[in-house]
Amino acid sequence: MIVSALLTSVGINTALCVLFFTCYSILRKQPTTYKVYIPRLLAEEQGNSKRRGRFNLQRLIPSPDWVAKAWNLSEEQLFSLSGLDGVVFMRTITFCLKIFTFAGFIGILVLLPVNCWANHMEDFDVYDFAGNSLDVFTISNINSGSYWLWVHFLAVYIVTGFICLLLHHEYKYIASKRISYFYSSKPQPHQFTILVHSIPTSSGCSVSDSVESFFKEFYPSTYLSHAVVRRTSRTSKIRSLLSESKNLYQRITQLRSDPSQQNHKRGSCFGLFGRNDNLIDHYRKQLEDIEENVRLEQSEASLPGKETRAAFVFFKSRYGAATAFHFQQSVNPTQWIAEPAPEPRDVYWPFFFESFLRRWTSKLVAIVATILFTISFLIPVVIVQGLVNLNQLEALFPYLSGILTIKFVTQVITGYLPSLILQLFLKVVPPVMGFLSSIQGYISNSNIEISACNKVLWCTIWNVFLATVFSGSVLNQLSDILDLKNIPGKLAVSVPAQASFFITYVVTQGWTSVLSELFRIVPLIFSWISKPFKSPDDEFEVPSIPYHRDVPRVLFFGLLGITYFFLAPLIIPFIMVYFCLAYIIYRNQFINVYAPKYETAGKFWPIVHNSMIFSLVLMQIIAGGIFALKKLTPASTWMLPLPVLTLLFNEYCRKRFLPIFIAYSAESLIKKDREDQKDTAMAEFYDKLVIAYKDPALLPIQYSSNNDSLISPLVS
Amino acid sequence: MIVSALLTSVGINTALCVLFFTCYSILRKQPTTYKVYIPRLLAEEQGNSKRRGRFNLQRLIPSPDWVAKAWNLSEEQLFSLSGLDGVVFMRTITFCLKIFTFAGFIGILVLLPVNCWANHMEDFDVYDFAGNSLDVFTISNINSGSYWLWVHFLAVYIVTGFICLLLHHEYKYIASKRISYFYSSKPQPHQFTILVHSIPTSSGCSVSDSVESFFKEFYPSTYLSHAVVRRTSRTSKIRSLLSESKNLYQRITQLRSDPSQQNHKRGSCFGLFGRNDNLIDHYRKQLEDIEENVRLEQSEASLPGKETRAAFVFFKSRYGAATAFHFQQSVNPTQWIAEPAPEPRDVYWPFFFESFLRRWTSKLVAIVATILFTISFLIPVVIVQGLVNLNQLEALFPYLSGILTIKFVTQVITGYLPSLILQLFLKVVPPVMGFLSSIQGYISNSNIEISACNKVLWCTIWNVFLATVFSGSVLNQLSDILDLKNIPGKLAVSVPAQASFFITYVVTQGWTSVLSELFRIVPLIFSWISKPFKSPDDEFEVPSIPYHRDVPRVLFFGLLGITYFFLAPLIIPFIMVYFCLAYIIYRNQFINVYAPKYETAGKFWPIVHNSMIFSLVLMQIIAGGIFALKKLTPASTWMLPLPVLTLLFNEYCRKRFLPIFIAYSAESLIKKDREDQKDTAMAEFYDKLVIAYKDPALLPIQYSSNNDSLISPLVS
Repeated sequence: MIVSALLTSVGINTALCVLFFTCYSILRKQPTTYKVYIPRLLAEEQGNSKRRGRFNLQRLIPSPDWVAKAWNLSEEQLFSLSGLDGVVFMRTITFCLKIFTFAGFIGILVLLPVNCWANHMEDFDVYDFAGNSLDVFTISNINSGSYWLWVHFLAVYIVTGFICLLLHHEYKYIASKRISYFYSSKPQPHQFTILVHSIPTSSGCSVSDSVESFFKEFYPSTYLSHAVVRRTSRTSKIRSLLSESKNLYQRITQLRSDPSQQNHKRGSCFGLFGRNDNLIDHYRKQLEDIEENVRLEQSEASLPGKETRAAFVFFKSRYGAATAFHFQQSVNPTQWIAEPAPEPRDVYWPFFFESFLRRWTSKLVAIVATILFTISFLIPVVIVQGLVNLNQLEALFPYLSGILTIKFVTQVITGYLPSLILQLFLKVVPPVMGFLSSIQGYISNSNIEISACNKVLWCTIWNVFLATVFSGSVLNQLSDILDLKNIPGKLAVSVPAQASFFITYVVTQGWTSVLSELFRIVPLIFSWISKPFKSPDDEFEVPSIPYHRDVPRVLFFGLLGITYFFLAPLIIPFIMVYFCLAYIIYRNQFINVYAPKYETAGKFWPIVHNSMIFSLVLMQIIAGGIFALKKLTPASTWMLPLPVLTLLFNEYCRKRFLPIFIAYSAESLIKKDREDQKDTAMAEFYDKLVIAYKDPALLPIQYSSNNDSLISPLVS
Repeated sequence: MIVSALLTSVGINTALCVLFFTCYSILRKQPTTYKVYIPRLLAEEQGNSKRRGRFNLQRLIPSPDWVAKAWNLSEEQLFSLSGLDGVVFMRTITFCLKIFTFAGFIGILVLLPVNCWANHMEDFDVYDFAGNSLDVFTISNINSGSYWLWVHFLAVYIVTGFICLLLHHEYKYIASKRISYFYSSKPQPHQFTILVHSIPTSSGCSVSDSVESFFKEFYPSTYLSHAVVRRTSRTSKIRSLLSESKNLYQRITQLRSDPSQQNHKRGSCFGLFGRNDNLIDHYRKQLEDIEENVRLEQSEASLPGKETRAAFVFFKSRYGAATAFHFQQSVNPTQWIAEPAPEPRDVYWPFFFESFLRRWTSKLVAIVATILFTISFLIPVVIVQGLVNLNQLEALFPYLSGILTIKFVTQVITGYLPSLILQLFLKVVPPVMGFLSSIQGYISNSNIEISACNKVLWCTIWNVFLATVFSGSVLNQLSDILDLKNIPGKLAVSVPAQASFFITYVVTQGWTSVLSELFRIVPLIFSWISKPFKSPDDEFEVPSIPYHRDVPRVLFFGLLGITYFFLAPLIIPFIMVYFCLAYIIYRNQFINVYAPKYETAGKFWPIVHNSMIFSLVLMQIIAGGIFALKKLTPASTWMLPLPVLTLLFNEYCRKRFLPIFIAYSAESLIKKDREDQKDTAMAEFYDKLVIAYKDPALLPIQYSSNNDSLISPLVS
């Protein structure tokens, strides 16, 4: 690829950036799009009609005040807005900004000049900038055996050292945050609860009795109570009935509080009833029917036969609960399997498997499906590669050769289209992986997302990075990858060859993805489509940030930056732009859009750490391969200790920090429990605890999260 | 290799067998070899002079009564003799006997005839049995694409199924044995104790204070006491002084109790003293000096500066102790690291590392050293292979060609010498691996042996099996092994080619090793050499069976049998002979020779299980490769699900049984604790518990394991 093709791509995307920013600055001020762009603020101010102000001219002038607001957000504010998970996510971005500032200095100020001028390539014309191949700026431009490669060698060592130092610092910081979060937290139900499954029952004895007798026998001093999980054959039906009843309730309260609205807006549709009271009566009747139905279904679910073999068991202290899940409970390790309970709002209710064997098989099925999906995803990648290698495309579709000779078309096709297609395909990955994780037997949304996050990350690395790299050079010979010995050599040949592809990938996929995050295209379109069917006051849910989509994306650009910083330093500025955009935009989204659905207290950081270590080792292997290829054997040999040292560093971090992210220590649990003992509010907390875990489908109907009143006072 | 070469080898070894058996039957009845052949019985009958009977003729006639005695030993008797570990070891052998009886039926009655006559090889002469190549009996004899291969296919499936069934049964049986052993055991110190290391100390506060305050704070109800481990700079010196004093004590008591002996036997050497009393006085004075020395050294060790950062912490209940080591104690996971304590007799005192980092580095060093040793061990293997491939040997040493043309020399060299040399080299592996495991930071002898057992097993498999297989076919191209994709194909070519080598290997290495176990050649020679320097009444130690030497050996023959049963069924009878010999001989040794030094309660079984699973998968991969090579593609394809199913089965066993071998469940611990509460002897047990863990080098001098009396009553 030549520089002008890259410039085309950068041009298109910069224009898109400006356009998106301007549109967003206007659209966010329109009341019709409040639910898309500031749902969080809207939910916080619900009932307050401040935002329903009349039209004024300022609404049409784009203003950048939201950028300043996002910029000024402090970490404490972010923590109070989105919890520790939000902080960890933003720190991942600032972490990347830090390392690429450092690597960028070395790359642009040292490596780039070395690449360009070290060997005075004859066909390189400084003045015909746009006509030059991008290869001029990469390590490929340096002659074999040149001593200038030692500069790259040093750069690899220095940057590895810097990243490891920073990784250690971050891990330490986030671990301390996690611990102080725990110390400062109020008593929370999930800290006192474990989930037990695979409960054995003897005949004539219900699951509930079995749990009661087991825990009363073995944990008499700390056991408090339990709640058996109930299976409803028609949970989904109850759920839909519930949401229907909620909408009806909403409508009735609306009609009562604002009689004008009914006449004004609905008069045409419901003219039949003429008067408010008639309409209200009609709705009320409907509501009563639904309530009756729900009650019937729910009472069926509370029959003894509907008990699953899983139960939430409540303890009087955090330490008591932790003791119970640290131990293998029963002599048979496949019975009484205990795990820490998730937060009540975080429980993934639809999926409570009964037996050990079923959980296990479903897990296997999910893993196999993930692997198959990841592998079959290669097909679009290979097609995209076909677009980059125009020759192959011409060979496949000879009738296209006429079009392909036009210069602009060629530039668009090689510079822009491939990564756009890839981007569209990649959109499918997070939801699919989310689904696969959800059938894997996890009992909390947070665990599902953590697992999906890992899946998406490795799927992206495998398909986008490795498959692009290898299919570009050895199309149809993917099986060669299995030849372990030659991997460094092959990587050394293929990775630099794909530098230009990945530079455009950052510009198109990276910049666009972060802008579409800001612009929220899908929710925007969805809100337009569903507008005619919804009243503006229908309840709406504040979305939560899909970490399993966004964390892997950020990490993948980190991987690209780390592996390419010494091969093609030109990639760094584009990556820096990506991270700067991400920095502002995600902060803005945390303020305006997303509300956390759960709190893992930083459990995403180990994923970030592992991904960084993988990137480092990959970069070091490629470096070793390149030095060998360029016939600088001592550099290649001296590259060998670096991955070993990096992996040792990782092993140290695993011992030093990882346990903190898995379970809390005895010391902190006991200290926290002692604090509680002084607290007089604990009795009240215990009362709440034993009813905290209820399947929402089995709760009595409740119409508002702020307001605990049931329908009865309204109906009566 | 031709059949006659094999017969030579079998002939030599059968003769050796008879010779060894006869010699053993005579030698074991001689009083001079009692300490070699029946040390265990001797120790039990110590003081009883029954065995010192006068010479009679019967002592010179070989009698096979010991075989009958070993045969009749029941499992309960074995359990009382050698604990659960002995039972597990013997069950490993009977397990192999069972599977090879089954595989042998299929192999000899079905596969062998198929191999021989399926294709009516032209150069095969049924009547010139001895002149035939062994290949006639292997799968190599079957033509490509022959449908007879489906018989082998079926055999592989059936035998895999049988072995998995048996594995499941055994795992279940041994797990239940382990649990019932725990339930029936008396309170033992190690059940109530944990070992804590990496204890942090604040300035001005000793390790002991630190432990006391930590456990009193966090485990007030269950904490009993603790004992800080002390470092002695001259532990080895104290040890030698102690053993010297013991010998002196022995001599004095001897002189006192049996004055005649002194005159009769020692008169010549110690004539100087003339009278008993003089001699006793002399010894007593020596003894007092030594005691004074020991006391000085020991008092130095009890200074506060000599505390290590490790301590044994005692609890009032098993459950309390287990709770403490299941938890991460401190907020910093590299401090207060707790692990279950070993039995007091099982503690490996010399090695108490102070800090987390030093433990970790020493572990890394040990692992790297193990890998280097395993790899460099290839050199003797390659040399041995040179002997098998005579052509290569002739090329290297042309002047040998004259000798190599003599038929008998050739037969000995190809049939006997290679595996004998290999056997000598392999003798070095267990002690080296034992040493490497001991510097790896384990705190108990049993853990060191378990770890060494794994190391020896993989070293043997890698060096003897894989390297022999590959170096035989692709000498000097070991790096080709890294080409993962081709492994099944390469195995399919190389493994059958080495059939004859491994048949002779079983005959020479297998039979000889088990006979040398019976004959105890090294201890025998050692006892002869040391005889002039030792009095017959010197204390002697009853040896314990070195599991890390014997378990891998047995398992390796299991691996050979499983991988070769369908390739060259002729190997089965020889392997059966090996296991039958092992069955009788090891039972005999358990009765007469070995006393257990520790009790892991069956922790060796998971190693056996893993090794069997590995053997099965290896066999299946080879089978798939061979069917592909013989152009029977459907059989090769249908072989694919088998390793997957086997690994799933293994995964199931890991979930179902492995946790039982790692820690006891809360249920069993609490039940056992409740039983104890009724026991009035517990107060006494607690008193013993707190002094159970003392470095023997720091104990007051004690002269006999049966007799608690100190020297003082004797001296005074």
